Amino acid sequence: MAEPLRVAIAGLGTVGGGVIRLLEVNQALIERRAGRPIEIVAVSARDRSKDRGIDISRFQWVDDMTTLGEIEGVDAVVELIGGSDGPALALARRTLAAGKAFITANKAMIAHHGLSLAGVADAQDIPLKFEAAVGGGIPVIKGLREGAAANEIKRVYGILNGTCNYILTTMEQDRRDFADVLAEAQALGYAEADPSFDIDGVDAAHKLSILASLAFGSELDFEGVATTGIRHLIAADISEAQALGFRVRLVGLAEADGDGLLQRVRPCLVPMAHPLAHVSGSLNAVVAEGNFVGRLFLQGAGAGDGPTASAVVADLIDVARNEYGPAFAMPVGSLARPPRADSGDRTGRTFLRLTVQDRTGVLAEIATAMRDAGVSIESFIQRGASEDGGALIVLVTHACPERCITDALERLAGSDSLTGQPMVMHILDL
Amino acid sequence: MAEPLRVAIAGLGTVGGGVIRLLEVNQALIERRAGRPIEIVAVSARDRSKDRGIDISRFQWVDDMTTLGEIEGVDAVVELIGGSDGPALALARRTLAAGKAFITANKAMIAHHGLSLAGVADAQDIPLKFEAAVGGGIPVIKGLREGAAANEIKRVYGILNGTCNYILTTMEQDRRDFADVLAEAQALGYAEADPSFDIDGVDAAHKLSILASLAFGSELDFEGVATTGIRHLIAADISEAQALGFRVRLVGLAEADGDGLLQRVRPCLVPMAHPLAHVSGSLNAVVAEGNFVGRLFLQGAGAGDGPTASAVVADLIDVARNEYGPAFAMPVGSLARPPRADSGDRTGRTFLRLTVQDRTGVLAEIATAMRDAGVSIESFIQRGASEDGGALIVLVTHACPERCITDALERLAGSDSLTGQPMVMHILDL
Repeated sequence: MAEPLRVAIAGLGTVGGGVIRLLEVNQALIERRAGRPIEIVAVSARDRSKDRGIDISRFQWVDDMTTLGEIEGVDAVVELIGGSDGPALALARRTLAAGKAFITANKAMIAHHGLSLAGVADAQDIPLKFEAAVGGGIPVIKGLREGAAANEIKRVYGILNGTCNYILTTMEQDRRDFADVLAEAQALGYAEADPSFDIDGVDAAHKLSILASLAFGSELDFEGVATTGIRHLIAADISEAQALGFRVRLVGLAEADGDGLLQRVRPCLVPMAHPLAHVSGSLNAVVAEGNFVGRLFLQGAGAGDGPTASAVVADLIDVARNEYGPAFAMPVGSLARPPRADSGDRTGRTFLRLTVQDRTGVLAEIATAMRDAGVSIESFIQRGASEDGGALIVLVTHACPERCITDALERLAGSDSLTGQPMVMHILDL
Repeated sequence: MAEPLRVAIAGLGTVGGGVIRLLEVNQALIERRAGRPIEIVAVSARDRSKDRGIDISRFQWVDDMTTLGEIEGVDAVVELIGGSDGPALALARRTLAAGKAFITANKAMIAHHGLSLAGVADAQDIPLKFEAAVGGGIPVIKGLREGAAANEIKRVYGILNGTCNYILTTMEQDRRDFADVLAEAQALGYAEADPSFDIDGVDAAHKLSILASLAFGSELDFEGVATTGIRHLIAADISEAQALGFRVRLVGLAEADGDGLLQRVRPCLVPMAHPLAHVSGSLNAVVAEGNFVGRLFLQGAGAGDGPTASAVVADLIDVARNEYGPAFAMPVGSLARPPRADSGDRTGRTFLRLTVQDRTGVLAEIATAMRDAGVSIESFIQRGASEDGGALIVLVTHACPERCITDALERLAGSDSLTGQPMVMHILDL
């Protein structure tokens, strides 16, 4: 029998419990596939005494979780604590310094510190792996790092946050407003008590920055992700989009645009014929468009203990098999540093929703602003007065540079005809 | 600069040309990702003088393609000749015997001889890779071998033949009959002059047997795939299925069923809410359902020079990175040999289309046969007489063991009320 891969786990929440359960339930087949057993030998978490419904007495308990990688006999550390800094980062640094493999599901930490960690790992040929950080159980990191590695990637994009997708899908199906669905999602445990990381797009932006680095061979640039969440969507945005043949999805998109790299997370209109339009509920999906492979589409459960544990253990199996290499597909020193692209140059169709006062001249004012900014209108819908005496205007532009849309909105910004912030959503190309 | 990976290519058809073009066009980024250059040094094909629109004078020409792996300095051989035996197999054997990496897109050869080749490769720790053999550019081999490796797979299935999917999609959209669409597909070059490998399901069966081996850790069993093609579908099968809320797709499915393994390729009814229903044209898609990851869905271009070249070069990059292991995820000796499951035990809903004489008593005869076989009917449609005086009956059964359907059809087999062979399609579970 080959030597087991001896694993220590930091963090015993739902995902940590899932990893322990998976390694137990699928033990025999994992041993066959990995070529050797994968054994948990030590664990650590914030609170030792908490009842987690799993027996951890079999494992060595370690009080200071940041020391797990330094324990004699541990080959690999799995980090499931979360947080971009603090104990997770200390554990990562100490584990790699001790020459042990480090596996994490922590997108925030990888988005912020992935390059410095990879620099240490790659220099010593130690595995640093984070499949579970993006797309839950979907092998998207592997898909980009290896599966699509022969391609120049034009765009990588997808639905990267299951909470937002659940909310948007429910708003769409039940024709309900954002706040209402969010409250329900919180009650059901699908959304956090403090949901801002999810609904403001931060979580998706962490993930997008990781995908972009792998797809474009560029350094991580989380700060370069222009991020807008779904907080300001109203039921009418979704129903009007639907009437026009689109679904609204929070899309994280990175695109090589000339010499620059565009990264953003925003609610977008997705044509019904695009596979992302059929990604419902808490599913995630990633699309990569390569110059030889064409469009790859990978879909699956983006969160949850089972899918996340599946990705963590897939990483462990790669390590056990000794099939690994540079975390970001190439040595950190080889990664490019493309400038951030000017999104104003980007051309596309845009959906605009304006809430306006229902009075003479408003329509002319909007039409004039669009004309003067060089925006040509493809469709225009005005819905009669609402309870508060306002009206709703929805328009879809012909393809134009995004700076023209910005210009038009600036022209309207001072107007007292508008009763609220406009909603701007780009339309995803088919 | 690290030593290049020196590659020889056998077969210079569209895919061979694609690989040469890809390695040229994406040369710089491949070198960054692979950590070293990937260089073609030698080529071989049946006809040296044929004009292929690519300059092959840069490469050493080799007359006897089976010797490519024996050339001094060649590190890896790419086989793109096709055929389960003959020169492709001779090349594989000689290349591995020479201790060189072997990469192939040849599903027929892998389905028939994959285990014996893997035995030789694994024993010497030589890469044997075949990502391009299934699903074209979609990383499905990697997805199962590595991405989903932590899971016990319950079912693996998908749309594995782009020609059939193109024909079915066109029949559906244009409401045309099979023969008509096939002839057009042949004229457009989407189907071979001799299309039987595609339309009779043999190509899909080759691919399915490979997926099943990876998913279930079992030996290849191509002969164990029960295969039915799409030749006998009529336009009405598709339109009636559509009216019932389904699309017709040729589905290759392998399922662990009790102690046995069920493998089959058949036209199936796919519910509109299932992602496979939205796989149109020549796209391929594979679904893997694991006990922790849930449902993974991978979609992309299943054929064509670009996507196939993408998969071949992804394999080369893995080899260049030294990230590889046993071809079938575990040593051949560890693979299980599950018995073939009895499909009669399998329970599900079934769509039946019967063409019958339009005369008194036919309905009673069918209803009686169903009842006596223990088949309960969920919906039943009879369409009035056609030009030839016959009528069409379409029925969907409630879930029952498949042997009951077989029994019912045997009861009807002797009847002169039926004017043709019944069409039997299982309904894919959501």
